[in-house]
Amino acid sequence: MSARSTENDAIRVAVSTVIFSLRAAPDGDRLMLPLVRRTRDPHRGVWALPGGWLDADEDLDVAASRTLAETTALTPSYLEQLYTFGDVDRSPTRVVSIVYWALLRSDLVDTQRSTAGAPENVEWFDVDALPALAFDHRRIAEYALDRLRNKVGYSRIAAGLLPDEFTLTELREVYEAVLGRRLDPSNFRRLLEGTDELVPTESFRTGKHRPARLYRRGREA
Amino acid sequence: MSARSTENDAIRVAVSTVIFSLRAAPDGDRLMLPLVRRTRDPHRGVWALPGGWLDADEDLDVAASRTLAETTALTPSYLEQLYTFGDVDRSPTRVVSIVYWALLRSDLVDTQRSTAGAPENVEWFDVDALPALAFDHRRIAEYALDRLRNKVGYSRIAAGLLPDEFTLTELREVYEAVLGRRLDPSNFRRLLEGTDELVPTESFRTGKHRPARLYRRGREA
Repeated sequence: MSARSTENDAIRVAVSTVIFSLRAAPDGDRLMLPLVRRTRDPHRGVWALPGGWLDADEDLDVAASRTLAETTALTPSYLEQLYTFGDVDRSPTRVVSIVYWALLRSDLVDTQRSTAGAPENVEWFDVDALPALAFDHRRIAEYALDRLRNKVGYSRIAAGLLPDEFTLTELREVYEAVLGRRLDPSNFRRLLEGTDELVPTESFRTGKHRPARLYRRGREA
Repeated sequence: MSARSTENDAIRVAVSTVIFSLRAAPDGDRLMLPLVRRTRDPHRGVWALPGGWLDADEDLDVAASRTLAETTALTPSYLEQLYTFGDVDRSPTRVVSIVYWALLRSDLVDTQRSTAGAPENVEWFDVDALPALAFDHRRIAEYALDRLRNKVGYSRIAAGLLPDEFTLTELREVYEAVLGRRLDPSNFRRLLEGTDELVPTESFRTGKHRPARLYRRGREA
């Protein structure tokens, strides 16, 4: 066991976060994630997921939040451990990366960036048009996207990406951005009626269209 | 970053596995897991999950299989990463444990143990009657059990715990052991008919009861 312990010292532990939000694009809101351009070798100048080293005296989720804030100035609306990536050949030195995935309400992205000062070397990318990524970060981003699209409840997605109150149309547009395809408005409405995931409020969104009722999240979230 | 890297050296990485199988008990087959009695401090003499240190030159799932074999002589039928536990206070020194969960077909448990020689310090425990466990291993075992009971498809459970061919009664008894409660036989049969999870064979189990058709797993597994 002592031989193993010595070898074990060569392993370093990092934390990375794939954080999704909705960002305005020419063809409507798109699901996007921020990447950080690396300023050090290996992969200097290449885009990578936000992250950093785990401190010896901090819990894993604290490290995820800290490294995300340090690199992007963002604070997630929802954060959950995703998977630990540790293939021997994923980096020139042995690095085990504990990866979190996170959601950020679209109404908070710009507030956070203007308060904290938008960090350099950070850019948002459409999940369907990612640039070349350092290490195994493309695989990690795709793993997180697969989870978001296939295993996360509607109500949690709404809670993580939308303000407290929203119209059914806004909610549908969120799902369309997450799923990457159009949904039929009447089917969508029918699907959500009668569930306890949504609670109607007495308020309406007014504007150039006819007034639309505002909803809140129900129990599941 | 260099200060952090130094602190990071104090973190060691371990791998543990919660492996479930069905074992005969006085009141029928029960869902059980093997524990290893610790021979070193901390928690010397206390039961713990099988595991060990990650080697610098081995992938995570390889480490899970190796440490499981070294401590229990068992080779899983199914193995999947569960979650990484890394709270600062989970151990006297800083240890991040990457935990796997696994299934072992009931017909292979005794074969493996007699071939490899049953290791000392290992005992199987009913998941509903675990002894005091070292570190945060009770929390880990409960997390794995929750996943098995709530998030794993029927077909995968059957593939991991049963031989290649089985009767509907045997399959129902597996689910009863996993879920910890009785299921109605006719409802169970109805639930599985018409799915593609099960494929009937032309063989029958004969014995003291009337012959029962044998099934194989379908597509999902």
